[in-house]
Amino acid sequence: MKKRENLVVQKYGGSSVSNVERIKNVARRIKSYRDKGKDLVVVVSALGDTTDELVELAHKINPEPTAREMDMLMATGEQASSSLLTMALHALGIDAVALTGAQSGIYTDKLHTKAKIVDIDPKRILKEIRQGKVVIVAGFQGLSPDEDITTLGRGGSDLTAVALAYAVRAGLCEIYTDVDGIFTTDPRIVKSARKINHITYDEMLEMASLGAQVMQARSIEFAKKFSVSIVVRSSLNNRPGTLISEEVKDMEGAVVRGITLNNKEAKITICDVPDKPGMAAKIFKEVSKAGISVDVIVQNVSSQGITDLSFTVAKDDLKQTLKILDDLSRKIGIGNVLADEKISRVSIVGVGMKNHPGVAALMFDALAKNKINIDMISTSEISISCIIRAKDGNKAVEVLHKAFKLSKKGR
Amino acid sequence: MKKRENLVVQKYGGSSVSNVERIKNVARRIKSYRDKGKDLVVVVSALGDTTDELVELAHKINPEPTAREMDMLMATGEQASSSLLTMALHALGIDAVALTGAQSGIYTDKLHTKAKIVDIDPKRILKEIRQGKVVIVAGFQGLSPDEDITTLGRGGSDLTAVALAYAVRAGLCEIYTDVDGIFTTDPRIVKSARKINHITYDEMLEMASLGAQVMQARSIEFAKKFSVSIVVRSSLNNRPGTLISEEVKDMEGAVVRGITLNNKEAKITICDVPDKPGMAAKIFKEVSKAGISVDVIVQNVSSQGITDLSFTVAKDDLKQTLKILDDLSRKIGIGNVLADEKISRVSIVGVGMKNHPGVAALMFDALAKNKINIDMISTSEISISCIIRAKDGNKAVEVLHKAFKLSKKGR
Repeated sequence: MKKRENLVVQKYGGSSVSNVERIKNVARRIKSYRDKGKDLVVVVSALGDTTDELVELAHKINPEPTAREMDMLMATGEQASSSLLTMALHALGIDAVALTGAQSGIYTDKLHTKAKIVDIDPKRILKEIRQGKVVIVAGFQGLSPDEDITTLGRGGSDLTAVALAYAVRAGLCEIYTDVDGIFTTDPRIVKSARKINHITYDEMLEMASLGAQVMQARSIEFAKKFSVSIVVRSSLNNRPGTLISEEVKDMEGAVVRGITLNNKEAKITICDVPDKPGMAAKIFKEVSKAGISVDVIVQNVSSQGITDLSFTVAKDDLKQTLKILDDLSRKIGIGNVLADEKISRVSIVGVGMKNHPGVAALMFDALAKNKINIDMISTSEISISCIIRAKDGNKAVEVLHKAFKLSKKGR
Repeated sequence: MKKRENLVVQKYGGSSVSNVERIKNVARRIKSYRDKGKDLVVVVSALGDTTDELVELAHKINPEPTAREMDMLMATGEQASSSLLTMALHALGIDAVALTGAQSGIYTDKLHTKAKIVDIDPKRILKEIRQGKVVIVAGFQGLSPDEDITTLGRGGSDLTAVALAYAVRAGLCEIYTDVDGIFTTDPRIVKSARKINHITYDEMLEMASLGAQVMQARSIEFAKKFSVSIVVRSSLNNRPGTLISEEVKDMEGAVVRGITLNNKEAKITICDVPDKPGMAAKIFKEVSKAGISVDVIVQNVSSQGITDLSFTVAKDDLKQTLKILDDLSRKIGIGNVLADEKISRVSIVGVGMKNHPGVAALMFDALAKNKINIDMISTSEISISCIIRAKDGNKAVEVLHKAFKLSKKGR
């Protein structure tokens, strides 16, 4: 279907609307688009720390609140911010209307606190736009088949924006945040980190899943699936931000686009696993049944019929994983289970590496030259990850950022 | 239709849920009803001063916010409190579910910030009750024909409770507040003021419209129209409260049930009005066109073809009324217009006075003996009001409370 090129979807995060002055600032930005004749659908998060405050209040009343009522409570944050931003636009003489997730036609499944969008009916949004109004949508929320209020989980407002951009066939989807865009690596670690002008969905997905935190993977997956181009930019200045879109030939000429560091994983080693078919399957089946994702799996060369098996899990899942393995060790013969939380994962990401041999060698060489020991290695089509000692994490990022010349301009 | 005698509707005001401890307290009270096997629909107001805080925030962003967006903003207060109270019940092991006004099937007109309920479809509420749940309803709110969130204006949560009690045919409707019930007069003025055990709709309506502030007149009007019996009582103790219902023969044997004082009116006197037919009509037509209610009207005896005309309006409407009269004086020949804000209205209320002559005489006599001058008099079937000097207000209430022996027990 043809896109409405004149229609822009924007999303403003909580930090962009954390106080009265910032709300007015966002209203002025929206006005500048309106003055250029653009139609706008604006998705807004809850004011500043509202969501955290509501969660804290709920836990004072009930340490284990029901997901359904948590959603009903949390959704008030975005409902309030959408009406306030609309009032700020009215004060500038801009015709605007605030809509809840339900009024915006965002229908989800029943999985409260982490609902999935199953359908969007943008009838009302399009009606309001035809009447010349800027539509302000409460992000992060939808309506279940039971007509209950649901929320979309972490990064939910980004998902609202991307999904609406697809549903209304917007020409552009802008995600406003408090940083200038996607960087070659975390600027707090490497001062010469450079903002990336254009990145593919796949690269962005790898970077998000490997530790970059600007956007959640699910919003990018949605954008990729439905070819929604996204621009990530700052609401505090007018810099152009980062465009996330389909692959472009020779895009900025770079092989490696970014370096990520993830300190949130732990390594588990199971010793003395009998080297017979189905052992690894049995182990990982039990772990995955508990909803725990396992990554970077390494099995040592078998010696005398037994082997060691290492893998990583999120630190948050470590305790539960160890319990599962403990239960399992009684059923099948495995040896000691060792846990190591003092690891980091450093990764390089870039679609270009598919066609450029030697990238892995350059990575390993750069780390070796700086005496950074590699414990485990994991690769995907467009990324290479090394598990290293946690203490070497920041240094590894700096070394790789330099080795792949990511500070160089013009990329 | 037959009532569900086992079904109780309760309403808890903002002061009853102003902090975590009070919310838990309300949950315990609900549990005590549940333990007795009662079914419950509980209407809840926003936490403490939430509504005022939201209004203040809105005005910082836009001094004249649109009514539609104000409703969307304010409705978050009750949505939040209903989910929090539900969580508190869950913590006590009580099965409960929170519903917004829309989910509760409360349909209103489009008059944002002061919408009227046009229909209630209690389908969902009854379904949840059949499933053994306590239903917690966000008060004060409904859904317009445009599927927008509306609010019901001052006292809106009381109205939600009374209207739901009718719609679900509840056996009882309890309005919980921070006072013990309806008093013979304001206990802050007269220490011996006594709680009334049983009062008729008509008496309660007169008392509400004459200045008593425990319940708004519109909720009582609704209750009267649909014969919903109401108990007003405190959420902070277990005293039985005041029953508001149809007239009962020889109810508590009292002639005068209560004394009210209203300091919110001003008196306007128009001098030198030509004493010819239609003059008063012309004047009051103009004033009422502006939505201003006029009360206590007194016209002096005509002298030489001109007369003086006095009446009262709410102090809030004084400025606008004076402007209307100023405009009018140019069109029709009237003299000076005088305004007097230093007046009070003291009233006695009681259905018994219909059949007891001499009540008015006793009132005027008691005031005269205490040197309180009566400026204007107004009567209804079950009330007598005197306009007096504002400085005499509290004394008049004390004098009348004593003269009609309202401190006497057993009434």
